[in-house]
Amino acid sequence: MSNEPSTILQTFANPNPERDYTIRMEIPEFTCLCPKTGQPDFATLHLAYIPDRLCVELKSLKLYVGSYRDVGAFHEAVTNRILGDLVAATEPRYMRLTAQFNVRGGIWTTVEAEHHGR
Amino acid sequence: MSNEPSTILQTFANPNPERDYTIRMEIPEFTCLCPKTGQPDFATLHLAYIPDRLCVELKSLKLYVGSYRDVGAFHEAVTNRILGDLVAATEPRYMRLTAQFNVRGGIWTTVEAEHHGR
Amino acid sequence: MSNEPSTILQTFANPNPERDYTIRMEIPEFTCLCPKTGQPDFATLHLAYIPDRLCVELKSLKLYVGSYRDVGAFHEAVTNRILGDLVAATEPRYMRLTAQFNVRGGIWTTVEAEHHGR
Amino acid sequence: MSNEPSTILQTFANPNPERDYTIRMEIPEFTCLCPKTGQPDFATLHLAYIPDRLCVELKSLKLYVGSYRDVGAFHEAVTNRILGDLVAATEPRYMRLTAQFNVRGGIWTTVEAEHHGR
Amino acid sequence: MSNEPSTILQTFANPNPERDYTIRMEIPEFTCLCPKTGQPDFATLHLAYIPDRLCVELKSLKLYVGSYRDVGAFHEAVTNRILGDLVAATEPRYMRLTAQFNVRGGIWTTVEAEHHGR
Amino acid sequence: MSNEPSTILQTFANPNPERDYTIRMEIPEFTCLCPKTGQPDFATLHLAYIPDRLCVELKSLKLYVGSYRDVGAFHEAVTNRILGDLVAATEPRYMRLTAQFNVRGGIWTTVEAEHHGR
Amino acid sequence: MSNEPSTILQTFANPNPERDYTIRMEIPEFTCLCPKTGQPDFATLHLAYIPDRLCVELKSLKLYVGSYRDVGAFHEAVTNRILGDLVAATEPRYMRLTAQFNVRGGIWTTVEAEHHGR
Amino acid sequence: MSNEPSTILQTFANPNPERDYTIRMEIPEFTCLCPKTGQPDFATLHLAYIPDRLCVELKSLKLYVGSYRDVGAFHEAVTNRILGDLVAATEPRYMRLTAQFNVRGGIWTTVEAEHHGR
Amino acid sequence: MSNEPSTILQTFANPNPERDYTIRMEIPEFTCLCPKTGQPDFATLHLAYIPDRLCVELKSLKLYVGSYRDVGAFHEAVTNRILGDLVAATEPRYMRLTAQFNVRGGIWTTVEAEHHGR
Amino acid sequence: MSNEPSTILQTFANPNPERDYTIRMEIPEFTCLCPKTGQPDFATLHLAYIPDRLCVELKSLKLYVGSYRDVGAFHEAVTNRILGDLVAATEPRYMRLTAQFNVRGGIWTTVEAEHHGR
Repeated sequence: MSNEPSTILQTFANPNPERDYTIRMEIPEFTCLCPKTGQPDFATLHLAYIPDRLCVELKSLKLYVGSYRDVGAFHEAVTNRILGDLVAATEPRYMRLTAQFNVRGGIWTTVEAEHHGR
Repeated sequence: MSNEPSTILQTFANPNPERDYTIRMEIPEFTCLCPKTGQPDFATLHLAYIPDRLCVELKSLKLYVGSYRDVGAFHEAVTNRILGDLVAATEPRYMRLTAQFNVRGGIWTTVEAEHHGR
Repeated sequence: MSNEPSTILQTFANPNPERDYTIRMEIPEFTCLCPKTGQPDFATLHLAYIPDRLCVELKSLKLYVGSYRDVGAFHEAVTNRILGDLVAATEPRYMRLTAQFNVRGGIWTTVEAEHHGR
Repeated sequence: MSNEPSTILQTFANPNPERDYTIRMEIPEFTCLCPKTGQPDFATLHLAYIPDRLCVELKSLKLYVGSYRDVGAFHEAVTNRILGDLVAATEPRYMRLTAQFNVRGGIWTTVEAEHHGR
Repeated sequence: MSNEPSTILQTFANPNPERDYTIRMEIPEFTCLCPKTGQPDFATLHLAYIPDRLCVELKSLKLYVGSYRDVGAFHEAVTNRILGDLVAATEPRYMRLTAQFNVRGGIWTTVEAEHHGR
Repeated sequence: MSNEPSTILQTFANPNPERDYTIRMEIPEFTCLCPKTGQPDFATLHLAYIPDRLCVELKSLKLYVGSYRDVGAFHEAVTNRILGDLVAATEPRYMRLTAQFNVRGGIWTTVEAEHHGR
Repeated sequence: MSNEPSTILQTFANPNPERDYTIRMEIPEFTCLCPKTGQPDFATLHLAYIPDRLCVELKSLKLYVGSYRDVGAFHEAVTNRILGDLVAATEPRYMRLTAQFNVRGGIWTTVEAEHHGR
Repeated sequence: MSNEPSTILQTFANPNPERDYTIRMEIPEFTCLCPKTGQPDFATLHLAYIPDRLCVELKSLKLYVGSYRDVGAFHEAVTNRILGDLVAATEPRYMRLTAQFNVRGGIWTTVEAEHHGR
Repeated sequence: MSNEPSTILQTFANPNPERDYTIRMEIPEFTCLCPKTGQPDFATLHLAYIPDRLCVELKSLKLYVGSYRDVGAFHEAVTNRILGDLVAATEPRYMRLTAQFNVRGGIWTTVEAEHHGR
Repeated sequence: MSNEPSTILQTFANPNPERDYTIRMEIPEFTCLCPKTGQPDFATLHLAYIPDRLCVELKSLKLYVGSYRDVGAFHEAVTNRILGDLVAATEPRYMRLTAQFNVRGGIWTTVEAEHHGR
């Protein structure tokens, strides 16, 4: 995996930093490639976070998610990497990413990772 | 956003202030405008609160929600603002507002904020 | 609201008072009148309680619920009143009443109150 | 109702006019005003048509639907009018429009009209 | 059953009589009394009709449905009577009424009747 | 199987014999015994009929269904027999009985039979 | 209620007593008789337990549940009695029984009791 | 595929041959082997038929379905073969078999075949 | 769009050409690019056909569907093209393709086309 | 039960061992044999674990699950054994296995066991 995707993410100032509140985003259109076979994988991403100073800008998130289209990535690694990119971009008080992958070999895999900020 | 909407909210005396109890309201007909594009946004609001001395009057809540029809508002800011207006009008023991916005750019966004009173 | 309904409720001796256990009752056929407009309101009641010495007799509960048919009652007040009547009749260790009212003015309202006994 | 909305609709050439096929569109974000009370109404539109020479362009359809935001319109009339505008713009072999309005006065109303072309 | 309810129904002119189209109304708040026991019965009504010259006015339909609140009525008879009243008031090209009654004696009963006009 | 159950069924005069209309009844509490093993079987019955001069009386139908509690009966035979009893008692213009039996041996069985009257 | 049913229950040695784990069983085919009216009652039982030395043998559980077919039993008493029989037979570390009874008098009743072992 | 499975099927005399009626069976536990890879395939079978002189005996059907456990079989061929075996065993007036196979390669396949008797 | 995709499709001989039967395939992982914006589009394809001499081979269908990953294609055109490719490859007695595209601009679009063979 | 299945399981290095995160796998295609009757049993397995140094390789998990196809196994024992094999292969920080077995004797059984690592 290249390191470029994270440069796509944009942020905006949290309009209510004095309050802990939660933003949840459901992103059903994630697709990448299986590093072994080159065949496409598909997942629905569920993001939840408590912003600190910065929020994720919606359109850049869409482009960031789309940037994995030609990237070979294993389920566990790519979920942790996306979480890492989003944490680096927004430095949230809390963030959780859940990636529900489509069935492969008769098995449905979901990977869920979270980050606890300051 | 103008400051007028909050003047629409009306209240009535909590008939059972001696007991903590919860009022939940589901409001599927919220619409405002995207500040960037001017295009309409839509959301379902879920309100839950423990009243102290005052309850929100149903019809004024409907009018208050309708007052955002021509207002430009970002998802995060408008959710926090509506919560702020409702807290200011009723001074509840607890209040939570969840705004489920319709899909934009292939992404469903939900914002959830809460207030803890005395 | 008159004070008569509570005289309808009947009880029977809890057959297992030595054990804390829960009885839940779903009652979809509650209707009363709006005190402002005189128009009918409808709700589904959800009752849950841990009996102490007494249980609510089913048929009398049905009649009690039916006794609100011609009574004018606000959502918040009537939920607390029904809980009060059921607590007075059975003196439970715990009781919770949830009233899900049908939509009015595009808004669904649910009121939930609970009582903690000895 | 003004006559302007229909000027918003744009079309493109049917890429497969040699075959009868069906295009269905679900549009959950229709809102107009009640001519009696001025209060907002909401509906989900379901469009189905067999194109002849022309197809409805997606973005212009969104703008056309949004143009009713400040228009006073009764359920029955507005459904027939939208169907009429879409028929005029695309002259389809067949078209059906179903408008599911949100509950008003405890009653859910759906209006369904269809047009049979040549 | 008295003959009064049907005088409540109001109509308005069909805005599109040149076209056959369908109006469907879901009415979940019907209640009447069991003629044998005096106990309340509850039903959801589903109305579908093709208007000719007249449409049913929504608010009067709500009041008409509410007028059965203190009326003793058997399931089969009351469904046919409501259909008859609605046919008399609107003289539709087609009308169907489906009444889904709540469970009694462990049995759910639904009655469905239709009228074919000219 | 004994011949007694059918004597339990009671009828009342169809209040609207001038019109063809449909009565549907869902009866989830049917149980009989497996003739081979003596073990209980369970089914949900769905009855639909167009009455001629007579309708099935609800309470007697409940008792009739309950009369199979100690009767040994195969799925196919008992469905046809119940239909036969109901046809004999009411002589309907049309009647259909669907019996959805609970799973046995990993297989769910449903039997559906209908009768066409005059 | 007679005391015989509990003699039907059979057990087998827990194959993994060194570990706390949970066994859940859903039993949709419970039926007994109403002690007042003699009419049948129906329920779905949900059993959950952490076995100690013994597990409930499946076929004997089916027979035990079936043994209530001709027994008169109130909802609250029979749920506690079945729990008591199962506790006596298996002496579990934990056990919970939930009995969801079918609607009677328009009211759905569920009784839930639990036992905490050593 | 061997020819043996069909010898397992047993029948019993149709108790109501004078009437056309339908028997439906849902069989969620079909498994066979992929002829290419040797890996197991899984399907839910839906059978519907109008018996003539013979009905399929339930237990033998379960055994027949289980006999494919070690048989290599393509989706299309095995569905038609099972239908053929069932037709040969029962000579029904009508029979339809629908086999819903579990996802393979991201694709869900269903095969549906029917037989029209005399 | 290039003309290459159709060369990927492989077929196998219909094992039961003497009978009309239906094969249905649900393919949730279709993605292509929007010709205007270059952004990805997503759809679930539903294929149903009655094979004549040839059936579609599953793995090649998966590869064929995947071949659109980098192809710019409008909803209406790509649905008709895929149907055309599948008809050309298998010459079926009947084939229908339904493409349910994900929401764009708040509107869900589905395109359904069918082919009638000899 | 033989001891061979556990030799099938393969692992790969956890790509993010510095973080606790969860991997969930839903496996609907488990089948083994009933040790008493020899008849097949079916279950859906739900696995959830927090990996330490090793993750379960997907394809080997599929083969491992498939290896029970001809193994006689009781519900409780086989669930604990599979958990034991997976714990032995991956030494996770936490692991839970839930096995939902298909209905037998009218009863649905689910067994859930968990392992707490270092």
